[in-house]
Amino acid sequence: MTHLIDGVGILAAMLTTLSFLPQAILVLRTRKTDGISLTMYAMFTAGVAGWLAYGLMSGALPVILANAVTLVLASIILGLKIQSVVQIRKPGLTARAAA
Amino acid sequence: MTHLIDGVGILAAMLTTLSFLPQAILVLRTRKTDGISLTMYAMFTAGVAGWLAYGLMSGALPVILANAVTLVLASIILGLKIQSVVQIRKPGLTARAAA
Repeated sequence: MTHLIDGVGILAAMLTTLSFLPQAILVLRTRKTDGISLTMYAMFTAGVAGWLAYGLMSGALPVILANAVTLVLASIILGLKIQSVVQIRKPGLTARAAA
Repeated sequence: MTHLIDGVGILAAMLTTLSFLPQAILVLRTRKTDGISLTMYAMFTAGVAGWLAYGLMSGALPVILANAVTLVLASIILGLKIQSVVQIRKPGLTARAAA
């Protein structure tokens, strides 16, 4: 039973961790981020950094590994989202400054 | 030190769990899902269901609670993404059938 529980946990960790890979690839390829919530990725990235800190403080290697991978992927998505928000706001600011 | 580690873990869990709320609200309000990866939400929702099963099997209440909330939010996002993919594909099929 313990093996089954561990197996389910490992499978779940792999799925939730690696799920951010197709999202990061999609955003990198299309640069389309308007459907993506900035608030979500700001909160999520901060939360994953917190999980990584928790793993490092408690010496839990699986927590460290899973969250280190997720932190890289979530940071890529967050970075590209911030970039697109800044790019959208810039022309507006210029137009207002010119008006 | 244990209190600090627990505190960091609880804060991290709250951030990663609740981060899906603004994303679910954004998708419900705008119905814009083209920037969202279907593969990500399919993998992520399956993974969170796995975490919930892991929590139930091992009797870990925090794991059960956090993943039950995330499962609801991720399922809403996945459901709306599937709905938009089906709607995009339908007119194409009709056009091809009519041609």
